[in-house]
Parts: sequence; C-alpha cells; structure tokens
Amino acid sequence: MHKDKNMYISVENAEKLCTSILIASGLSSKYAAIIADNLILAELRGISSHGLSRMAVYCSRIKNGLININPEISVIKKTPATVLIDGDNGPGQVVGLKAMEMCIEKASSCGTGICTVRNGSHFGIAAYYAMKALEHDMIGVAMSNAPATMSPWGGITPMIGTNPFCFAIPAGKHRPIVLDCATSVVARGKIILAEKEGRSIPYNWALDKLGNPTTNASEALEGSVLPFGTYKGSGLAIVIDILCALLSGASFGIHIGELYNNPDTAQNLGFFLMAIDINSFVSIDIFRQQMDQMIEEIKSCAKADNNNEIYVPGEIEYNNEKLNRERGIEIGHGVMSDLYRLTKEYSLGIDPFELIYH
Amino acid sequence: MHKDKNMYISVENAEKLCTSILIASGLSSKYAAIIADNLILAELRGISSHGLSRMAVYCSRIKNGLININPEISVIKKTPATVLIDGDNGPGQVVGLKAMEMCIEKASSCGTGICTVRNGSHFGIAAYYAMKALEHDMIGVAMSNAPATMSPWGGITPMIGTNPFCFAIPAGKHRPIVLDCATSVVARGKIILAEKEGRSIPYNWALDKLGNPTTNASEALEGSVLPFGTYKGSGLAIVIDILCALLSGASFGIHIGELYNNPDTAQNLGFFLMAIDINSFVSIDIFRQQMDQMIEEIKSCAKADNNNEIYVPGEIEYNNEKLNRERGIEIGHGVMSDLYRLTKEYSLGIDPFELIYH
Repeated sequence: MHKDKNMYISVENAEKLCTSILIASGLSSKYAAIIADNLILAELRGISSHGLSRMAVYCSRIKNGLININPEISVIKKTPATVLIDGDNGPGQVVGLKAMEMCIEKASSCGTGICTVRNGSHFGIAAYYAMKALEHDMIGVAMSNAPATMSPWGGITPMIGTNPFCFAIPAGKHRPIVLDCATSVVARGKIILAEKEGRSIPYNWALDKLGNPTTNASEALEGSVLPFGTYKGSGLAIVIDILCALLSGASFGIHIGELYNNPDTAQNLGFFLMAIDINSFVSIDIFRQQMDQMIEEIKSCAKADNNNEIYVPGEIEYNNEKLNRERGIEIGHGVMSDLYRLTKEYSLGIDPFELIYH
Repeated sequence: MHKDKNMYISVENAEKLCTSILIASGLSSKYAAIIADNLILAELRGISSHGLSRMAVYCSRIKNGLININPEISVIKKTPATVLIDGDNGPGQVVGLKAMEMCIEKASSCGTGICTVRNGSHFGIAAYYAMKALEHDMIGVAMSNAPATMSPWGGITPMIGTNPFCFAIPAGKHRPIVLDCATSVVARGKIILAEKEGRSIPYNWALDKLGNPTTNASEALEGSVLPFGTYKGSGLAIVIDILCALLSGASFGIHIGELYNNPDTAQNLGFFLMAIDINSFVSIDIFRQQMDQMIEEIKSCAKADNNNEIYVPGEIEYNNEKLNRERGIEIGHGVMSDLYRLTKEYSLGIDPFELIYH
C-alpha cells in the first residue's frame, strides 16, 4: 500500500464493489444498484464527502436495523399534484427515487408535482433526484433536512441541519444547470473529511462548542457549522426543514436522529421533491435555446483579476464527472480501509486493493 | 421643515396620499389601492427601500406609457396546477396579486399551484404576494427577476439581477415565518438610499466598475452588487432568473429593462409564484403546533456573545410593523420632496407636509 500515491478505481469496479457489499448487507440487487448509483454519481461529480465514504455507515445502520432493507413505501395522502409518502425507514436513495418518480408522474398530468416524505434515511446528494427530472424535459427540485449541526444565525449551538437543496434545469447544447448546495458555508462532510485527513479548515466554516470561530476540524465537529450568507442561509435552512419535515410529519431540527453516533434510532428524515414540466409553460425548444444563450452570456462576463473562468452552477461538477469517468474515481486510504473491512466482514472474496490503480 | 427632526406619517394618511397620487396618474381606484397597500406594507415591515420612495418612478413610468394603467392580463397556457399569464406591462403589484390568486385557486384543487408571468413590471416586496397564501392555510412562494446589477460569482460586470425570493409559512400562536431576501448581500435599494443620504456602505456589498470592492455608494451603483454567500447566492439568482423568465417568456439577465434610467422601454420582468396547500399533506392544526414548537426551540438557542436574541425569518419585520403601525411610518426628506412634487404636478390640493408629524 503506497501511502504517498493517489489511488483510483474505475466506475465499473466501484459499482461492482458497492453493489456486492450492499447485497451482502441484505439489500435486493435492485436497491443495492440504486444506492451504488447515487454514491458513485457523487464521486463522479467530485462530491466525495457524499460518495463511497458513506458505505460503512449505511452497512452498520442496516445491521442495526435502523435502515429497513424491505421498506413498505406507502402513500399517506394525495391530491392531483401532490403526494405524501411514508418511507418506512427504507434506504434514503430508494425512497427518494420513488418519490421523485411520483413527482414526475404528477407533473406529466398537472404541470407540476410535489412529493414530501416522512421516515426517510440519509439520501446522499440531492442532485441525484433533481437530475432525474431532466430526461423528462422537467425542472427537478430536491431538498432534505438533516440532523442539527448548524446554529441559527446569532446562535452558537446546533439547532438546524445543513439542509441541502438542489435545482436541476435542462439546457440545449450546453449541459444542464444543477445547483446543489448545503445551506452551511460548506457541507459538513468536508469538515469530517478534513478531520480524517488531519487538515485545518477555513475560519468561516464553523464555531467551536463555546461559539468561537475555529480552524480545527475536530473542534468544529464538536461545535456547530455556520450557515452560508449569514442570516439568509440560516433562514433558508429553516424553510427547508419546514418543507421537508413539517409538510410530511418527519422529525425536524434537534429531534432528527444522528447518522453516525446513533446506533439506536432511525433518522426519520423528511424530503421535499418537486418536478416542473417545462412544456406546460413554454416550448421546451425555445427554453433550451434561451438556456444556452443565458449560459453563454454569463460565461462571457468580465472576470475578476484572480479568476480565469466564470462557471455556471453544476459546470464544475460536470467537468469533474468527465475527468473521473476517464481517469477513474480517486479513493482515500480511510475509505479503502472501510471497504476492505466490509468485504472481509461479509466474506465476499473480493479484495478492494486488487481493484485499485495508481 | 425641520431637517434635523424625524418625520412620520400615519398609515391612514400614507394610504390616502399614495392612492390620491396614483389615481391622479390615471390608475383605477382599485389598482391604486393595491399598489399603495404593497408600498405601505414594505414601509411597515421596515423595508423602506421598497416603500414610498418608489412612488416617483412608478408615476414617471406611467406617464411615459411604460406601465400600462389598463392591462389586459391574459392566460397564455394552463394545466390543472399551473398557469402562464401575460401581464401586458401592467403595474407589477396588480399583475403579481392576480397571479398569486391563481396559484391559491390551483392549490385549492390540486394541492399546489404555480403561476409564471411575462411582461411584468417592478412588483415591490415579494413578501406581499407570498403572504397572501397565509390566510388560506397555504405556504406562499414569490420570486421576481430584476435588471442586471449583480455579477455572477467570479465576474465583475452586472449580468444578473438581485432576484429576490420569499417564502411565507403560517404558524400557530406565533407569527408566520416570512423569509424575504434579495440574492445580493443586501437589496440594491439600500445602496440607492445610502447614496441619497451620503452614507458609505460596508466593504462586502458591492464592486466598483473596475471590479474592486468599494465603500462608496455612488461607485457601487456604477459597478455591480455582490451575491450573498458568494457562489451559492450567485447560483440561486441564476435559478430564479430561469424560473421567472425562461419559464414565462419574459426578458432575462442583461435584456431586462432598467427601472430608473430607462424612459423608453417596458421592463418585461418575469415572476414565479407558487402556493402549497398544507392540508393536502398534513393536518394544518398539527402543522401550526409544530411551527410554534420549532420557533420556540430556535429562539431558545444559546446566543453569541454580541447577541441578545435569535430571530426567526420575518420576526424583525413583524416587530417593525407593530412599531410603525403605532408610531407612524418614518419618511425621509427626499421621499417627501418627491411626494410634494407629485401632488403639485397633479394639482391634488393636498400638502404632504401637512400630513406629517415629528
């Protein structure tokens, strides 16, 4: 094992490895494939905080019965354009995908569709769901709440999640616009990764447990992360919590089950998913043309001195995906150890170290 | 005229004064009342940048035929849950209110409703529309695009508007949560006001025309304002432009007609309005109880050293409204001069200075 060399795994091998482990954990091959697809999309897009590093905690929570491998996903209430479903503590990816499919169906008949979800589990990157709308000529929206790790603006203790939101919007010859953000300055996963790798963090990411700004990742994880854009990001996180949880009957704020240090209770996360059918408003062809024009105009903007290019939302992630598909997914030592341990635990007869290259 | 004393006007007199002027400009008493209601709500909530200071430019644009006093607001396309309307360059407030009413009607039958608008004019504060949903036990959403005054993140010239968004959500015994934000660090109206009053502005609000941060309000107005939360606010502004304009056929980005220095063309703004019926998902009674619980929990958060209270979104504005209803609306000398000039121009026989007190 060369500690000083980058390790890579091909998309195909990453899929095989993840699905094998997930099937061994008890999931059906269909569900395993959905979860692997979601984690690998995150890796491809360069959001490794939401990628293969989540395998260990998912498997551990499945083992403890906190993620239901055979959920009965049920419709609690519906109207022509809306539906509320109970995810029965199933894998967030399985439940979230089902919910997004319902939004797309509703939007096909009503112009738009909203699905809220109770009893959800961690669903990975929000972009995975929102982007499902793209192939239907629709705009996709995805939000989830999350365990309380962020202070409301002006406070110093965690009361709300870093509740992410995503909008995915098709373009024409250009790639779609995909804005996928945590409502914290950065996703908390990046602080977890910094701690794992012994790196310090920028001053404006988090507070320590006494409420002081800190550059120490461990202190930050004991404290609270800061919302993006001060009170505006804080307000948006609160609104997302309401849309995801109060509009579904999921847990909210401080009542949400933690993902990592919580071997006893299911998370009961809430999701808010929406699809908007573009043809119900304007011609999709004109819409695509105007998207291209807008993207080109924004990218033509005069640049700040220290900047070579203006990126539209999601562009960097599409560039990452292109690179990672060709080069393979970079994988860290901590994540490799987890995967190695899981293959041993489930006696899979696969050695992840044989799948990597430098 | 006491230049050193604050001037106030009662809500009742502000209504009389505004509606008299707007009726004299050619508007029906019904339309005049809607616009006055919108501007006064902004003043009450403490958003004076979107209050009576807009009277002069509205009257001037009506005189130049750029705001249509008798718009034929027409439905271009509709589905069960969505509608696209053409505002025919009518007053933004009149068109926006009509669009919000359509959303509420759609949400009553379909669980949710979206209305996009083309050929809109400046509609004042977004909260005015979103809050209309509250009395129907619904969540209201309102967005508008705006003339390009903001750089996309990494750029230095204005390419996108400070496109505002608002979510209004009913609570129980507590007041609703109303998050009403420009996607810039602050609304550009605050820089206009700072320039009028000869004040400097904080370093992180805007760039000068060469792309350097500036504290000079005049230089900022010649340059570009900065998005809130760096690339996230920039991305959100782009998404709002798409929802408002590309989903309606309105102008977008650099193509939007300016409000002030543009005596020749209508703005062709786009709006995106949405209502979500809470009872279509969960019981409104339980929702209201949980909103109260969430608000109380957030407000109980341990506070930063320099902070006495945690405010939920919209709370400061509700506090402002309570104060301003009792004390009267504070009104500046520049705005008083405008109103005085308008009463003279229309020979109204009202002297605004007789309506104020100190």
